[in-house]
Amino acid sequence: MIAVLKQKIRPQQLEVFLNELTATGAIVYPVQWGEQSLVVTSPLSSAAVGVLDRSPLVESTIDTGSVFQLTSRCFQRKNTVIHVGDARIGDGSVAIIAGPCAVESREQVAAIAELLHGQGIRLFRGGLFKPRTSPYSFQGLGFAGLDILRELKARHRFVIVTEALSERCLKELIGTADIIQIGSRNMQNFSLLKEAGGAGIPVLLKRGLAATMDEFLLAAEYLMAHGNSRVILCERGIRTSCCHTRNTLDLSAIPYLKEQSHLPVIVDPSHGTGRSELVLPMARAAVAAGADGLLIEVHPSPADALSDGHQSLTPDLFRRLVEEVDRVAVAVGTRLTRNSPPF
Amino acid sequence: MIAVLKQKIRPQQLEVFLNELTATGAIVYPVQWGEQSLVVTSPLSSAAVGVLDRSPLVESTIDTGSVFQLTSRCFQRKNTVIHVGDARIGDGSVAIIAGPCAVESREQVAAIAELLHGQGIRLFRGGLFKPRTSPYSFQGLGFAGLDILRELKARHRFVIVTEALSERCLKELIGTADIIQIGSRNMQNFSLLKEAGGAGIPVLLKRGLAATMDEFLLAAEYLMAHGNSRVILCERGIRTSCCHTRNTLDLSAIPYLKEQSHLPVIVDPSHGTGRSELVLPMARAAVAAGADGLLIEVHPSPADALSDGHQSLTPDLFRRLVEEVDRVAVAVGTRLTRNSPPF
Amino acid sequence: MIAVLKQKIRPQQLEVFLNELTATGAIVYPVQWGEQSLVVTSPLSSAAVGVLDRSPLVESTIDTGSVFQLTSRCFQRKNTVIHVGDARIGDGSVAIIAGPCAVESREQVAAIAELLHGQGIRLFRGGLFKPRTSPYSFQGLGFAGLDILRELKARHRFVIVTEALSERCLKELIGTADIIQIGSRNMQNFSLLKEAGGAGIPVLLKRGLAATMDEFLLAAEYLMAHGNSRVILCERGIRTSCCHTRNTLDLSAIPYLKEQSHLPVIVDPSHGTGRSELVLPMARAAVAAGADGLLIEVHPSPADALSDGHQSLTPDLFRRLVEEVDRVAVAVGTRLTRNSPPF
Amino acid sequence: MIAVLKQKIRPQQLEVFLNELTATGAIVYPVQWGEQSLVVTSPLSSAAVGVLDRSPLVESTIDTGSVFQLTSRCFQRKNTVIHVGDARIGDGSVAIIAGPCAVESREQVAAIAELLHGQGIRLFRGGLFKPRTSPYSFQGLGFAGLDILRELKARHRFVIVTEALSERCLKELIGTADIIQIGSRNMQNFSLLKEAGGAGIPVLLKRGLAATMDEFLLAAEYLMAHGNSRVILCERGIRTSCCHTRNTLDLSAIPYLKEQSHLPVIVDPSHGTGRSELVLPMARAAVAAGADGLLIEVHPSPADALSDGHQSLTPDLFRRLVEEVDRVAVAVGTRLTRNSPPF
Repeated sequence: MIAVLKQKIRPQQLEVFLNELTATGAIVYPVQWGEQSLVVTSPLSSAAVGVLDRSPLVESTIDTGSVFQLTSRCFQRKNTVIHVGDARIGDGSVAIIAGPCAVESREQVAAIAELLHGQGIRLFRGGLFKPRTSPYSFQGLGFAGLDILRELKARHRFVIVTEALSERCLKELIGTADIIQIGSRNMQNFSLLKEAGGAGIPVLLKRGLAATMDEFLLAAEYLMAHGNSRVILCERGIRTSCCHTRNTLDLSAIPYLKEQSHLPVIVDPSHGTGRSELVLPMARAAVAAGADGLLIEVHPSPADALSDGHQSLTPDLFRRLVEEVDRVAVAVGTRLTRNSPPF
Repeated sequence: MIAVLKQKIRPQQLEVFLNELTATGAIVYPVQWGEQSLVVTSPLSSAAVGVLDRSPLVESTIDTGSVFQLTSRCFQRKNTVIHVGDARIGDGSVAIIAGPCAVESREQVAAIAELLHGQGIRLFRGGLFKPRTSPYSFQGLGFAGLDILRELKARHRFVIVTEALSERCLKELIGTADIIQIGSRNMQNFSLLKEAGGAGIPVLLKRGLAATMDEFLLAAEYLMAHGNSRVILCERGIRTSCCHTRNTLDLSAIPYLKEQSHLPVIVDPSHGTGRSELVLPMARAAVAAGADGLLIEVHPSPADALSDGHQSLTPDLFRRLVEEVDRVAVAVGTRLTRNSPPF
Repeated sequence: MIAVLKQKIRPQQLEVFLNELTATGAIVYPVQWGEQSLVVTSPLSSAAVGVLDRSPLVESTIDTGSVFQLTSRCFQRKNTVIHVGDARIGDGSVAIIAGPCAVESREQVAAIAELLHGQGIRLFRGGLFKPRTSPYSFQGLGFAGLDILRELKARHRFVIVTEALSERCLKELIGTADIIQIGSRNMQNFSLLKEAGGAGIPVLLKRGLAATMDEFLLAAEYLMAHGNSRVILCERGIRTSCCHTRNTLDLSAIPYLKEQSHLPVIVDPSHGTGRSELVLPMARAAVAAGADGLLIEVHPSPADALSDGHQSLTPDLFRRLVEEVDRVAVAVGTRLTRNSPPF
Repeated sequence: MIAVLKQKIRPQQLEVFLNELTATGAIVYPVQWGEQSLVVTSPLSSAAVGVLDRSPLVESTIDTGSVFQLTSRCFQRKNTVIHVGDARIGDGSVAIIAGPCAVESREQVAAIAELLHGQGIRLFRGGLFKPRTSPYSFQGLGFAGLDILRELKARHRFVIVTEALSERCLKELIGTADIIQIGSRNMQNFSLLKEAGGAGIPVLLKRGLAATMDEFLLAAEYLMAHGNSRVILCERGIRTSCCHTRNTLDLSAIPYLKEQSHLPVIVDPSHGTGRSELVLPMARAAVAAGADGLLIEVHPSPADALSDGHQSLTPDLFRRLVEEVDRVAVAVGTRLTRNSPPF
């Protein structure tokens, strides 16, 4: 249950009210939603209903009728549009976020920046911290790479997307990152979700390795209940018994999530297939299915990449992707967001 | 290894040759491939290679370098195009096969036939024999429904696609069916595959419930090794740990199969999602990913369907699907196959 | 709903009654259950209930409260015990069924027969027809191997278990086979299930490649509704995303199935792991979890086996298995069924 | 490659050596292993091999021949035995770790403590921080519950096992916890693994929701490369397409892990089934398959549990489990570790 509070409530009044609710055994989150102050309460015992009914602070209540509260389309009918820098995600057009799996060097980043710039793409993703299955694999440049991203941002006005692996890491990235990525392996790292809920910048949340839709949306709910309403959901494939691709990209998640939730949904066909030759058809398919954007790995020389080279596009393939995806976007009544360079 | 035989070989010569090969321990299939006589031999011991090398009947040999022989793109570079009645599948355009899950009555079939007719669609699919999980669910009209399909064919020149559940069933359907469907639960019913290999009509082979790509192509290889070169592969979703859809539709199978094989690949978003509201976006996505066709369940009144009503489209939704899919097809450089009515 | 009929009903009366029930839209199976005549009716509309209530033929009705009827523990509380030859399966002791994956030769079968004989094991399993993923793999000796099994039976009084791949195949095996195996790939081959329902000999039904418990029990329900009450359920692992074993052996199926159903449950750790070094620990575990029996692949020389050699035990390992399993059986309050040779 | 260093190396020498190795592009971990100083280096370029060959600090090198280094049975043949308090895990006997899903109150903990005490069990597990799918579910008592665990430890000499959800959390638990649990959702929380690598106390690492054996062992490798050699592996079921249990308990992991690694392997049948009636048979099966221990959820009143009540045993069932498991342990040549009360 979501209680919409009246305006001009004194902090002390609010505290008393929250304590009363908590005393019923409910879990309670006060949330600022645009202009409105909300209190999300669940589960809803009769005692908790009583408190809500009696309280003079409550203007109205919203029952979403499900385990989802703030992520639910029943709570907010209209799509959430995320503004970050000059970019928008979820406004009906198709956004492309692109970059290397890992930031490797100034030269590598510069080459990719130029490519993106030429295509009118301004959402740059590059990892400094890489969650690698083996401790003996390249772990990313770490904070040593922060300067590279800062320069990129300063010079080209790119919006920077980068992954945080821990609460500590997250704090260090604030100021440089414009959007924090939470990776699949951390989708249910609830400490990190709570921290990112208070980060003040948008979060790109990737679906867990074998996560159901409920688990995915409830991970987003953690972010929102902890104060962050700017969440981007990213389908990136799930683990199945089929092995011709690295993961099985579940495009049905797009229309399903958009039906259930108001949050924007993007797709990562690079991890979703693990094979560069399958990235283009799956990127087209994602847009045809209604995705709000794509997350694409590109590398000036995939064969030399320190991680995930087999799924990274060459610059040529990337330009072809942009072109093909644009045509499909138009066919389904939208378009690709591209800024005329120089942006 | 595929051996291409010389022309004008006497049956007795061939028999001796095949016996020699079999004596080496190899499994051997003589196959007629268009004008050419082939012999597929596997596995290839040095003894078998010796027989092939020495035989005066062998014109040339083709090594596909994999477990796949006749299904492999290494054996045949160009796409297989399947002609059936006036329809073509795999010719570069997008074919729609549509109809009810089960043939229920003359009235139901007539209503759907009229709908398809109006959309210029001539591939009609309807099941007489339904493979149902429970013995207490509607099992289909059985042979009692054959007349309904025969009339449909006679009156409207529809190409009839219907499922065979067993060798016996297959024999009875020949003459009425134009394309035999082998369902997911029978993808590895090897007796049925062998029988359908000799059926003389095209086979629409659905991917098994949790089949890998190798298993799927090797099931097609059974059909081809037993003499049927007209095989249509149908992706219909696989069983995974995710349950927001009936199955997880694996669209990456489309570009993957088309890379590995020359056979046409179609997609069944009805079974692949199990929910009518997801059928349209996934149908668009399938075409964007390069599918040669779609298999769509439609029913005049889905709520009254005797099986699979929740995934069947209403006539209105079906018309919308045709329109939307056509636009995506054009965006990816192809088009929807539609016959101008009256066809 | 299961209706227990009164004794001494004339065929004509029964026919009228069944027609009345069918006319309500219900699916109806008359079944002989020991001394009793039953009619299973589902789904149960109010019209069908009316027919049952009014009919003078009905002595009593049993409502299992689920989709399961004849397989349900609610229908029959006591365990089904299957008597075949001198052997019993499901009587509280642990039965071992063993043999090669495929019957390869007289010599191979004789060597295994001697081994089993020495261990007091009299359930011999060997495949004549092998469901192989590739048409280019060894397909089994086929009917040519029937004589080998017949001799084995005649000489050693073994109970013969062998797989049927099709209805036709099933008919040919009757007379030689004592128990018909229906393999994983055919668990939902409903034509074969219906045929095996009328076969008159016990059926060993293996769980499908990715089958749920419901699907597994409903496949058994097909056998029972079509007249065969002697069904043995066999857990043999399911397909998952984990690949250190050929399949993931789901031992929780044992207590679950025994809770839901009265049918005996055996386990195949050979297919369930695909690696001979894991067969012993998993066989012990299966018995500790309450299995009624084990299905074990053994070969005089696994390295030379024409199929599945990597999962077949050597004679030495097999003898160790029998010994270890026996100790675990005793620890859980049962024992291994062993006949003192010569049996 | 693992390099065993000579004794009495000066810190400065070591630093130069490590820098040389790192300069070759290798990832390098210095590790203290009992009395020996090791350096683990991977991947192994020819340049890195050169450094190892030339260095006067290296006494010998060990090539495990795989991606695993410190976890590999090739590195250490004998089983790792973990001593903690008076308890031992991995010494050939079967250890039981038991307790509630979540610490709820002094009374609840006291009741369980008494039960365990009476059974001679001294490994107590109780969660203060619960990783819950929904933010609206009970999140555990948090640090407020620390005192309860401290008193338990002081009064009864229990060995305390509790879960850490984050690096911060881990630090706060040190001093109270004797063994830190890292849960399934955090198996690939690499920041947490690195921190726990330096925690100085044993880690109970649970297999991830859909983790392969390689991923599981490489997560343990993170702990070991970061300095913690006392790692307990815990199989707790994986996510599959089968839903009669909460997870599919993969008991084949026990013999597989014990073959590949020297680390102890325990099993959690509570999460592995999610249903209390299946816990006993699966606990027996785990021990029969060779598990070094069990992790069992028990609650004085499961129906009132704030989390996971459906999978918690009652005290009566728990006592029965101890008895049954003991019998199976003896049958497989081991025994249950039980301390004669008062311990």
